[in-house]
Amino acid sequence: MIAVDCNGADLGPAEVAAGAALAAEQGARVLLFGPAAELGELPAGVEVVDAPISIAKAADPVKAARTTPEASIVMAARAVADGRAQALVCAGGTGAALAAGMFNIKRARGIYRPALAIPLPVPHRPVTLLDVGANAEARREHIVQFAFMGAALASTVLGVQRPRVGLLSNGEESARGSALVVEAHAELSERSREDSEAFEFVGNVEGGDVMGGVADVIVTDGFTGNVALKLMEAVSQTMLGAVREAAMSSARAKLGGALLRGALRSFRDEIDPEANGGAYLLGLRRLGVVPHGRFTRVGFAQAILRAERGAGEDIVEQTHRALAAAGALRRSPVSAPDASLS
Amino acid sequence: MIAVDCNGADLGPAEVAAGAALAAEQGARVLLFGPAAELGELPAGVEVVDAPISIAKAADPVKAARTTPEASIVMAARAVADGRAQALVCAGGTGAALAAGMFNIKRARGIYRPALAIPLPVPHRPVTLLDVGANAEARREHIVQFAFMGAALASTVLGVQRPRVGLLSNGEESARGSALVVEAHAELSERSREDSEAFEFVGNVEGGDVMGGVADVIVTDGFTGNVALKLMEAVSQTMLGAVREAAMSSARAKLGGALLRGALRSFRDEIDPEANGGAYLLGLRRLGVVPHGRFTRVGFAQAILRAERGAGEDIVEQTHRALAAAGALRRSPVSAPDASLS
Repeated sequence: MIAVDCNGADLGPAEVAAGAALAAEQGARVLLFGPAAELGELPAGVEVVDAPISIAKAADPVKAARTTPEASIVMAARAVADGRAQALVCAGGTGAALAAGMFNIKRARGIYRPALAIPLPVPHRPVTLLDVGANAEARREHIVQFAFMGAALASTVLGVQRPRVGLLSNGEESARGSALVVEAHAELSERSREDSEAFEFVGNVEGGDVMGGVADVIVTDGFTGNVALKLMEAVSQTMLGAVREAAMSSARAKLGGALLRGALRSFRDEIDPEANGGAYLLGLRRLGVVPHGRFTRVGFAQAILRAERGAGEDIVEQTHRALAAAGALRRSPVSAPDASLS
Repeated sequence: MIAVDCNGADLGPAEVAAGAALAAEQGARVLLFGPAAELGELPAGVEVVDAPISIAKAADPVKAARTTPEASIVMAARAVADGRAQALVCAGGTGAALAAGMFNIKRARGIYRPALAIPLPVPHRPVTLLDVGANAEARREHIVQFAFMGAALASTVLGVQRPRVGLLSNGEESARGSALVVEAHAELSERSREDSEAFEFVGNVEGGDVMGGVADVIVTDGFTGNVALKLMEAVSQTMLGAVREAAMSSARAKLGGALLRGALRSFRDEIDPEANGGAYLLGLRRLGVVPHGRFTRVGFAQAILRAERGAGEDIVEQTHRALAAAGALRRSPVSAPDASLS
């Protein structure tokens, strides 16, 4: 069973519900939290809990998640915490989802910070980038844990054996980068030598090589990762738009575009963010999936199916085992969850 | 007269010399530093100074620039410092160029850090991004100066009246971003209100809006800017490659590609990094231009022509006036130049 918060999507809660219906057709079982009156007729496999209150657009999502127990995302997170559902999908308001997840599902044992991990829509060579925005700031030990979390995701969910992990930087040499990157590089090198099972550290990866197939997982702080992800998506869409524009510029070009359309479609589908279903929220005691708020029902269905598959594969336990084996679990007492929400 | 260092280019010094010849055909006067024996026959307008020693690939470019007075980039920078040339172009080894520039040309009065600024190849809507890699770390006051430097570049060289300056971040709201970004946002807001002439601050710009026309200048630290720039270029090239591949996938697609080729060419030329000539090196007492080391002669010629035009427009003085008017000049005694090279 997957708990899904309908509120916050650009196209409204009914679009998310339609996505849940599509996912149910493919066998998913969904517990839907949203304004029941707006969600329409839904098939067997989709159960609705009336939760009209949304904190997706709250100015202070941490405070809203703490003080609004009747908010749809809080109710959905509680369903996962209680075991009524095995994973969480949130259609909008990443900050609120993160806070509701931290307060209710809780951080997994020994994890400093949750992270958002996204398999990038790179043709032929999937690469998982994290953190793409759960934390605007990161410390060395966070980046190191992101490497273990990303590697566990790549091996359990994506089937990559001993994933190659790279560190996003402004140069390949180990001395290049911000102080954070230089420190993280040193520790990742050391851990990769010591613990050769979890992942292979391939060193710094420049912006120009993110899509070059040099790594299966690329780690960075949530500020840089968020900028990078949004930039990649925007450049791709701008380029597709420019090709479309060129194909409308003359009769000759129109004919060319018509003939090329079929061949371009499979490529366009491959890089379509909706086909991927969005980002994984890692580091909680249960899996989360965060689709883009601007998705249509197709993308929301993918997100729910992704959560269902991921919940079965027990990425949380895999991550814990790898971190424990490497001695990379957080040892100090866990602070109040809100203290680590940025 | 433009001082050009030939060493460090991927295709070798002769390719840079060929670029100088092309620029000379369009009226530029060039003082070329490189291995004279390898540079071949050159036209009037290009004067060669034999300087075969290269520090473009030095592991420690700061040290190399300090201890190798006979290196081509050091000799070229000295020519600019002495007034034999009005601007510097360096074909490879950004670190060495930056160090040689700092030691010889020196920082402009009141500037904390030089920055690399690049007009992004965005169709229809040029936007200048800085810093794209001169400094891996930045402080609030550096980001603020980058805004003035970028605005002066946009208004003097690109002809934009009162440029709109944005701050790269992971969210639009003023509270979003790293601690650095939040601090810089606050100061830029304040300065934009006080000093409405130099620029208009439009707030945070997300990765997805860099190409959206919301700002003429986007400021960020050199780590994020470098990652962003290289990512944009790589995504563009990957997309063009995918379109080309699609256009080879069947007889039908081949015909379509052939018909569309002409329409796509002008777009492809518009986003071609070579056509832009590379990045401006701002913050020294004279202008620098840093083309990509992988450019061909066409790109090097553009870089030289860009330097020649820029030198005539006195961006250094414009920047100084704007910073002085806003009280944003560095007041503390200037430390030894090497202390501020990262």
